[in-house]
Amino acid sequence: MIVILKAHAEQNKIEALTEQIRQQGVSIHYSQGQTETIIGLVGDTTHVDEDWLRANEIVADVRRVSEPYKLVNRRFHPEDTHITVAGRTIGEGSFSVIAGPCSVETEEQIISVARSVKASGAAFLRGGAFKPRTSPYSFQGLEGEGLRLLKIARKVTGLPIVTEIMSENQLDDFADVDVIQVGARNMQNFRLLKELGHSRKPILLKRGLSSTMEELFMSAEYIMAGGNDNVILCERGIRTFEKMIRNNLDISAVPIIKAKSHLPVIIDPSHAAGIAWMVEPLARTAVAAGADGLMIEVHNDPSKALCDGAQSLNPQQFDHLMGDIRRRVAFEEKTLEGQ
Amino acid sequence: MIVILKAHAEQNKIEALTEQIRQQGVSIHYSQGQTETIIGLVGDTTHVDEDWLRANEIVADVRRVSEPYKLVNRRFHPEDTHITVAGRTIGEGSFSVIAGPCSVETEEQIISVARSVKASGAAFLRGGAFKPRTSPYSFQGLEGEGLRLLKIARKVTGLPIVTEIMSENQLDDFADVDVIQVGARNMQNFRLLKELGHSRKPILLKRGLSSTMEELFMSAEYIMAGGNDNVILCERGIRTFEKMIRNNLDISAVPIIKAKSHLPVIIDPSHAAGIAWMVEPLARTAVAAGADGLMIEVHNDPSKALCDGAQSLNPQQFDHLMGDIRRRVAFEEKTLEGQ
Amino acid sequence: MIVILKAHAEQNKIEALTEQIRQQGVSIHYSQGQTETIIGLVGDTTHVDEDWLRANEIVADVRRVSEPYKLVNRRFHPEDTHITVAGRTIGEGSFSVIAGPCSVETEEQIISVARSVKASGAAFLRGGAFKPRTSPYSFQGLEGEGLRLLKIARKVTGLPIVTEIMSENQLDDFADVDVIQVGARNMQNFRLLKELGHSRKPILLKRGLSSTMEELFMSAEYIMAGGNDNVILCERGIRTFEKMIRNNLDISAVPIIKAKSHLPVIIDPSHAAGIAWMVEPLARTAVAAGADGLMIEVHNDPSKALCDGAQSLNPQQFDHLMGDIRRRVAFEEKTLEGQ
Amino acid sequence: MIVILKAHAEQNKIEALTEQIRQQGVSIHYSQGQTETIIGLVGDTTHVDEDWLRANEIVADVRRVSEPYKLVNRRFHPEDTHITVAGRTIGEGSFSVIAGPCSVETEEQIISVARSVKASGAAFLRGGAFKPRTSPYSFQGLEGEGLRLLKIARKVTGLPIVTEIMSENQLDDFADVDVIQVGARNMQNFRLLKELGHSRKPILLKRGLSSTMEELFMSAEYIMAGGNDNVILCERGIRTFEKMIRNNLDISAVPIIKAKSHLPVIIDPSHAAGIAWMVEPLARTAVAAGADGLMIEVHNDPSKALCDGAQSLNPQQFDHLMGDIRRRVAFEEKTLEGQ
Repeated sequence: MIVILKAHAEQNKIEALTEQIRQQGVSIHYSQGQTETIIGLVGDTTHVDEDWLRANEIVADVRRVSEPYKLVNRRFHPEDTHITVAGRTIGEGSFSVIAGPCSVETEEQIISVARSVKASGAAFLRGGAFKPRTSPYSFQGLEGEGLRLLKIARKVTGLPIVTEIMSENQLDDFADVDVIQVGARNMQNFRLLKELGHSRKPILLKRGLSSTMEELFMSAEYIMAGGNDNVILCERGIRTFEKMIRNNLDISAVPIIKAKSHLPVIIDPSHAAGIAWMVEPLARTAVAAGADGLMIEVHNDPSKALCDGAQSLNPQQFDHLMGDIRRRVAFEEKTLEGQ
Repeated sequence: MIVILKAHAEQNKIEALTEQIRQQGVSIHYSQGQTETIIGLVGDTTHVDEDWLRANEIVADVRRVSEPYKLVNRRFHPEDTHITVAGRTIGEGSFSVIAGPCSVETEEQIISVARSVKASGAAFLRGGAFKPRTSPYSFQGLEGEGLRLLKIARKVTGLPIVTEIMSENQLDDFADVDVIQVGARNMQNFRLLKELGHSRKPILLKRGLSSTMEELFMSAEYIMAGGNDNVILCERGIRTFEKMIRNNLDISAVPIIKAKSHLPVIIDPSHAAGIAWMVEPLARTAVAAGADGLMIEVHNDPSKALCDGAQSLNPQQFDHLMGDIRRRVAFEEKTLEGQ
Repeated sequence: MIVILKAHAEQNKIEALTEQIRQQGVSIHYSQGQTETIIGLVGDTTHVDEDWLRANEIVADVRRVSEPYKLVNRRFHPEDTHITVAGRTIGEGSFSVIAGPCSVETEEQIISVARSVKASGAAFLRGGAFKPRTSPYSFQGLEGEGLRLLKIARKVTGLPIVTEIMSENQLDDFADVDVIQVGARNMQNFRLLKELGHSRKPILLKRGLSSTMEELFMSAEYIMAGGNDNVILCERGIRTFEKMIRNNLDISAVPIIKAKSHLPVIIDPSHAAGIAWMVEPLARTAVAAGADGLMIEVHNDPSKALCDGAQSLNPQQFDHLMGDIRRRVAFEEKTLEGQ
Repeated sequence: MIVILKAHAEQNKIEALTEQIRQQGVSIHYSQGQTETIIGLVGDTTHVDEDWLRANEIVADVRRVSEPYKLVNRRFHPEDTHITVAGRTIGEGSFSVIAGPCSVETEEQIISVARSVKASGAAFLRGGAFKPRTSPYSFQGLEGEGLRLLKIARKVTGLPIVTEIMSENQLDDFADVDVIQVGARNMQNFRLLKELGHSRKPILLKRGLSSTMEELFMSAEYIMAGGNDNVILCERGIRTFEKMIRNNLDISAVPIIKAKSHLPVIIDPSHAAGIAWMVEPLARTAVAAGADGLMIEVHNDPSKALCDGAQSLNPQQFDHLMGDIRRRVAFEEKTLEGQ
């Protein structure tokens, strides 16, 4: 971390500041020029608060050199993290497809979708029981009943289930869920993240619509700081100025996550595009970029879906996509999980 | 709401769709051109799901004509809403300044700040007890103890208190708070919004960093749909590409809110700028734009603040700002509350 | 195009407006509801000005249904456009790699780079003679001398050359260039686009940093409206909030362009990432997304490059990338040009 | 400027790099820590290329401490710049209103608008002769004839004229224009900026839709580096995610420009909002923020305007706005020019 002092800072104030910094267990490198004086902070600066430094009257600017995230950081954990759920491995070298409807609607629907996505090669079943909807007048999910139906579908097909939590209050209800999803709008719901840190469940953490990679890493750090290492990152599109699609898939997120972190990364092309026909080309780029899996919305009858029908594939489309993905995963010399 | 059909849509599918729409209590206007067929939905379309329409195979596009928010909408509630808290009125014609530290640190600190902001003319005391911090390693607030100290400062000064809630679990603890703040990162924490709807407390709802005005209105609609009409909107800067400041104050939010909604709007220039020297010029624009108040961070010793020191004014700076604001509020022929 | 009228618009004003619209050769569908009156414009609305409609006092809103671009539009030109340059085909089914330095520096440098990229499999040589630099103090290119050296490199290697134009004044100097590039900052330099429309040269049109796809299409429409059909679109990264990379490659641009337009599309991963190590993973996603080629910066000694060294590959890195790209192009059953 | 070296950089490569830096006339401060080595560059680093440093294999990161703009910088030119045109002063302490139609349409129209804006208190007449339109099918301006009509309106009213240039080719035609405007889309048309630097005309430089303040300053630096000090900056709204308005007025631009630069700054609320009713509230914020003037679109009959009718005020609306602005300029103790 580098602190740039204002020109003409008084010597006694500089000494007071450097003393305060040293008390935080960090060494100081002091470099005085004609126009600028620079203080370099050496050591573990994770706990040093940039804002606190900026508020000092003699400080002109503060630049972080080392990353503020530690447990998430590949620098301190060079090996790839692999997370195993019901015999499926999520992480480098494997490729896992999570598929299912936006929301669980009926027992018949969820079992039907679960069977068809399993037959096509999905490794996990997804389905929303609690739905975060922009409008209070939109369908909010079957809630507890949705969770119950998901578990029935799991029993019938053997597919582990992935579903979204909306509040730390629901943790008990989610005790029997295989992978707990944190939605994009909750990426910085820090109370929820902290409680998930006390769990040992695999957490699928979705990136916020306008969050930076560093913010995503810091949210994962919240979970890991609580002791839960089972974090899977998920890129699902970012908000841009483009009007032809709902969100722009940030495909660079994959190489960045692989370089900076050891955690697995999953791509959700359905929410990124918001349109069914674009799911397949985006899914292809996810494989090529080096992602560890895909999360795809599939509905038995998209035109009757209670949410996100426009972006859902029907079972035939999903089967076609899986045929293509299977060839591409083999090309990358990875293992398609759940087969 | 307008539904644009695909060219060559089959007649029986069009009829099936229009029948489904009519069943939702909405009338249909049907307009067939050579290249495009358009269905106009007439009536209350608040409950009609755009996504459901888009998922239909014969639908090319859907455009909403009327707003999806109703209780928030000035069209259905032409008079300005005024919210009265401890004798202070928040709403058109009045101007309320909420001031205080980013976080409550000690009893001495909060009482000292409360006394000085009151002397300068603030109508409300703000102070964070639960702090949403990007890093798990940053100071997270004094939590319950912070609430206790805020109430002491209220007792000493008579200033009503505004403080941020982070989860619906905390509602009991906030029973004695005057105005409950929902932070920008929780603007779409729908579980929290729903529970706040069941309360009758005034809610200060901050706009998310990258949220549209419509999304802000829909979040307010969640609270009002629960029966709580006491919603105050707060613009606190949006994320842009600019690197010289933390966020860009979206001053257009004020005339938009005043035109589209009847709810009061407060400007937070401290979080927008992120730098103390820019708080005063931005505060001036808030008055000129027609805002109903300001929320400003003040700390007795910003360089020792445990959070947001860089953007906090010291008591002298705040006093100077209030002198200027007082003249400007008079110029606008509004009443400065709390005097 | 749909025009939504204000409630209570007077009948004589509605008639005046519809008459004005009809005079532009467009038919009218009129749909009156209880709360909303909608006018549908049927026919070729390319020339109807949205702003003009919006300015009418009885108009509440205007929504375009059909695209405002015509010559670029796949709807009116279903077959893919192929552009042939010196025996290389750019367009669907082929894959062309354009490689070379950010700027031409010396005869030795450009010949050396040209020979090595040719040996590795590039089909075109790129190199900047006129450089659009943010700072007036940065190296601005060798200008005319740069063009001369590029032509020598072409003579030596046989590679056709791609280089950037900055003003319509330079058209004569570019008469002997194989593909003229329009940079991102000039995407809406309409004087330049118009003049390029009068040329018959292939134009590589780069998307602006914050431009929408529709704006890109409209800029291509400017060139095509002048009579020049040889337009190649190029996605080179968009500005987002991310700080870890220079720009975010918008990989969705590829399927959108392929769906909406018949023009070829090239991806420039070097400018998107701004960092050499990320060029290869992004290049892989370009092939998978269905792009028709790549544009890649290669320098004989990146650490001595006069511009963009940080994102340039050295010849060994480029050779490695081409080995990978060759396998992937074969996987997609496309032809690698220039072999 | 600070250069952060990679861990384990070899000593001979560090020496080679520091020697290369010294050759550019910059001193070195060298600070070696356990995990990080930092090189501080001391002196005038305006000419040192960040990209060149980043491309060096032992460099991990580069951070600029001092600004890359010099002539524009208030640090090196503490006094406010005032530009005088036909007896009107643009700069701190004065307030100038530039008003007129989006485009010149007829002699009658431009004279009528010129007379009415003069009567209401405008100091300058604006009007477009060459129009940068997104679509090649939209009205492109009267071009040379438009310039001729503007000069007639100037003769009739005595108002100096402001009009937009689109290419350096047009400089001769603009010899008799009082203030030459560079549009937002041309903010980084560097050939044009360079040629304007060789002129001595006052230049009104509009900020690009997604440009940072630093980029705006660098574009002004291009003009000033050519010897032309008469630069007026203009903020006209930035692109954001908001759909209710065309662009978001970035009101923070005013205090930033006033702090970082000595150049005058004008606000264009018409292009920012894109809707007539929002022009007045935004204009009020411009005065309060400390801007040196306004640029406002006025049309004798907005519903018949050939461009931008939706955002144009009619003469009555403009007269009302000027009444309000006059009171506010007096409140700020500034002089309204042209009275």
